Amino acid sequence: MTMSMHGNLSYQELMRRYRRIGILGEVSSMLHWDGAVMMPEASAAARAEQHAELAILKRELLVDSRMGALIEGAWDEDLDDAQQRDVALLERQRLRMMAIPSDLLTALTRQKSKTEIEWRAARAAKDYKAVAPALARLLALVKEQAAALSDSLGLDPYDALLDGFDPEMTAERVDALFLDLSTWLPELIQAAIDRQSTDPAPPPFDGSFAAATQHRLGEQAMAALGFPFDKGRLDLSTHPFTGGIPQDIRMTTRWDEADPVSGLLAVLHETGHALYEAGLPASRIHRPSGRSVGMTLHESQSLFIEMQMARSPAGAVWLSGLMTEHFGPQPAFEPEALGRRLRRVERGFIRVEADEVTYPAHVMLRYRLERGLLADDLSVHDLPEAWAAGMEDLLGVTPPDDALGCLQDIHWYDGAIGYFPTYTLGAMAAAQLAETARMEMADLDARVAAGEVEAAVAWMREKVHAEGSLHGTDDLLTRVTGRPLETGAFRRHLEGRYLDG
Amino acid sequence: MTMSMHGNLSYQELMRRYRRIGILGEVSSMLHWDGAVMMPEASAAARAEQHAELAILKRELLVDSRMGALIEGAWDEDLDDAQQRDVALLERQRLRMMAIPSDLLTALTRQKSKTEIEWRAARAAKDYKAVAPALARLLALVKEQAAALSDSLGLDPYDALLDGFDPEMTAERVDALFLDLSTWLPELIQAAIDRQSTDPAPPPFDGSFAAATQHRLGEQAMAALGFPFDKGRLDLSTHPFTGGIPQDIRMTTRWDEADPVSGLLAVLHETGHALYEAGLPASRIHRPSGRSVGMTLHESQSLFIEMQMARSPAGAVWLSGLMTEHFGPQPAFEPEALGRRLRRVERGFIRVEADEVTYPAHVMLRYRLERGLLADDLSVHDLPEAWAAGMEDLLGVTPPDDALGCLQDIHWYDGAIGYFPTYTLGAMAAAQLAETARMEMADLDARVAAGEVEAAVAWMREKVHAEGSLHGTDDLLTRVTGRPLETGAFRRHLEGRYLDG
Repeated sequence: MTMSMHGNLSYQELMRRYRRIGILGEVSSMLHWDGAVMMPEASAAARAEQHAELAILKRELLVDSRMGALIEGAWDEDLDDAQQRDVALLERQRLRMMAIPSDLLTALTRQKSKTEIEWRAARAAKDYKAVAPALARLLALVKEQAAALSDSLGLDPYDALLDGFDPEMTAERVDALFLDLSTWLPELIQAAIDRQSTDPAPPPFDGSFAAATQHRLGEQAMAALGFPFDKGRLDLSTHPFTGGIPQDIRMTTRWDEADPVSGLLAVLHETGHALYEAGLPASRIHRPSGRSVGMTLHESQSLFIEMQMARSPAGAVWLSGLMTEHFGPQPAFEPEALGRRLRRVERGFIRVEADEVTYPAHVMLRYRLERGLLADDLSVHDLPEAWAAGMEDLLGVTPPDDALGCLQDIHWYDGAIGYFPTYTLGAMAAAQLAETARMEMADLDARVAAGEVEAAVAWMREKVHAEGSLHGTDDLLTRVTGRPLETGAFRRHLEGRYLDG
Repeated sequence: MTMSMHGNLSYQELMRRYRRIGILGEVSSMLHWDGAVMMPEASAAARAEQHAELAILKRELLVDSRMGALIEGAWDEDLDDAQQRDVALLERQRLRMMAIPSDLLTALTRQKSKTEIEWRAARAAKDYKAVAPALARLLALVKEQAAALSDSLGLDPYDALLDGFDPEMTAERVDALFLDLSTWLPELIQAAIDRQSTDPAPPPFDGSFAAATQHRLGEQAMAALGFPFDKGRLDLSTHPFTGGIPQDIRMTTRWDEADPVSGLLAVLHETGHALYEAGLPASRIHRPSGRSVGMTLHESQSLFIEMQMARSPAGAVWLSGLMTEHFGPQPAFEPEALGRRLRRVERGFIRVEADEVTYPAHVMLRYRLERGLLADDLSVHDLPEAWAAGMEDLLGVTPPDDALGCLQDIHWYDGAIGYFPTYTLGAMAAAQLAETARMEMADLDARVAAGEVEAAVAWMREKVHAEGSLHGTDDLLTRVTGRPLETGAFRRHLEGRYLDG
């Protein structure tokens, strides 16, 4: 590294250009939120064209040959650690983008929109065959994408896709972690179900719970966690998600007037995602090192709030108070009864409704199947059968139809192969972070029970959010918890909560 | 024009590039709507950067030297009339954009956002001095813009700005039309007020009118007019407007629970704008000739629905029925009483609350002042005084504070000089179009009274909307009404409604 005579001119110009790309990404993100929350149905085609055009523009800015020269120039400049990280991350992002020809990018973007629309109809009609041809076409394009990335990055095709969601993660690593899980999880599921069979069932909810009141309750919980309502909002959508940008966070949920808990848990989960974005370092806005690390850490943030805090005995005390305040007292809201509901273990069909004990089984199934699909070991035609067999194998249940089976998740129909593992990797990371947080803050659970939940968020903000992506997932976990990602804390958490608790 | 050996390759490539620019404009339009309807307050700075970046990208695509070569190439190709119009309009748009250096464009975009934010606070505080420095800075940039456009287009600076809102319109033309108005309007205002002084005052509204019910009523009126709810929606904002794109129309209004008419009239007005966009020729989507002509014709569409149809005696019958259906009968909803309210003439301070008889006086004041500001005949410092003097002169009233005076409208604080005249030019065009429509459809008012209001829209769709911008304002008016824009029909309309009616 030599000192430049004129300061870091290449680096500065590189960041100026990256900022433009980042702002186009912000625009896409706002439009994505609008598409799920506000957009009229028949406007979908125009919106798809907008997304395609923004993707192409971002690509053009990123692959521009001048960017390559600037990256080379920047490496010769006197950069601090964060700046070096910026250049390295940007170089990687550019390499990934250059691997994908513009025609393929357009075809992918269009086929994703088309397949997703057909999937919605197919799922409503429980008719997998109706969407299978579109899925096959999309999968063929994803395979092209994986092959192109594989060549460019020198990674296996599946790893090349996984790397797009969780940098540095590999199938070899996932295999090892999931193999470990598979040695103890099936027994733990059975033991947890056996154990709770002697508990009384959670009392049913009494009455109807107005959506408007649930909305106020949800916003109160978000405020307690430190959600910045001056630069964010909560709206409704079919599937809860967190969109927007750190300066304009758009969170969504849905309310069930017969069940005041499910929507609230979705809000708590999404607030974890939202606070990660809100807590990213403002000093490194529009720099690669100022962004979130990847989906494993992102999911760890939502699961830290939802699973580690809210569903704990202390969390049940907090939520019990909130629910009683808004809906009056009833047996189902008693802390102990509410806790039993929040920690109920059941072998079900639907991933997003699964408890944290059976959830990894849902993920392992999808991981197994999507690797098969990508490697041509499994055909789109045979997916429903393979799904049913896998559910029987991993959870001992067989879905009665494909809406409760291979049509339930949007991911594959949106071209996302390599995303699913991050849910369970995130659960592991959340357990690891929570274990450390509880060691460093002995009164953490007492504070959560008292509603001082922002204490947990403050710790996470300092340890994780404020780092941006200065470090990869394993580096960051090692810095904070002393160990890279592993299954130990997750196992101790589940055993402690479901067997000994 | 020579036949190209390879078809219209330059033209085709030109349209492909224009489509990209158009789609970026669509994106800006969606974000603009979001900014007024959904965006949290503290997100404004990030949004301003997104708008600035999109503006710069649009500029880059438009001024690209290859575009110039393609335009030259296209002129040598065998183009039909619509294609020739596409090239001519695009060439003009490019010429306008090339005149504005990128630095000036960025400075303008940023200063507009800043000034608008300061204006909101200043208006709330009735404190013109608080925003005057920001307005002065913005005005200096607008003058630079006008000078640059003036050089490029060979127009006077004010004409160069006016041309951006209403192509081909000139101050000379506006002067002549407004001079004509000024010879008969003051007398007409006085005569209308004298005449109505013997009428009973409209009965007051009895009760409170739930916003949710007004919203349903508004949507029912929109549906009757043919608003396409599968690709459009109605939301709330501080100031009603129509945003979005023809395939995704975002209309807004506000509801006053003490007054069930004001929000409804805003909805009817905005529906006129919305239907113009919705009715543009789908076969020429993403082509310059497929867009709306300019603000005069746009405003003619909103005023055709609001002033010519809804506020007519026939319109009062229609609206009376709607209001009675939703809120039950009461004296204020009787057609005759409602009609008196809809046609009440008053010398007021606020343009957007003005009736159609006094409205042109508000516009003439702003036109006079903005020409003074641009020509340095009037300083930002002296604006409040000049405003008060002008109001006294034109309407015989003096605003008690600047919130009711020169702080009331956003336009100048958003950098829009040259926009105001189009409101009154639009009122003239609406009268001209309505006069022809009533001649061609003898039963038009009977159908409006019966709620068959889409009949009027269907006529307009065929005569105006479907043309896009194949013709300029005067050409189109001449084709439809037999005469270019003039004051005659407007005068006959006002005299007929307010003196003889």
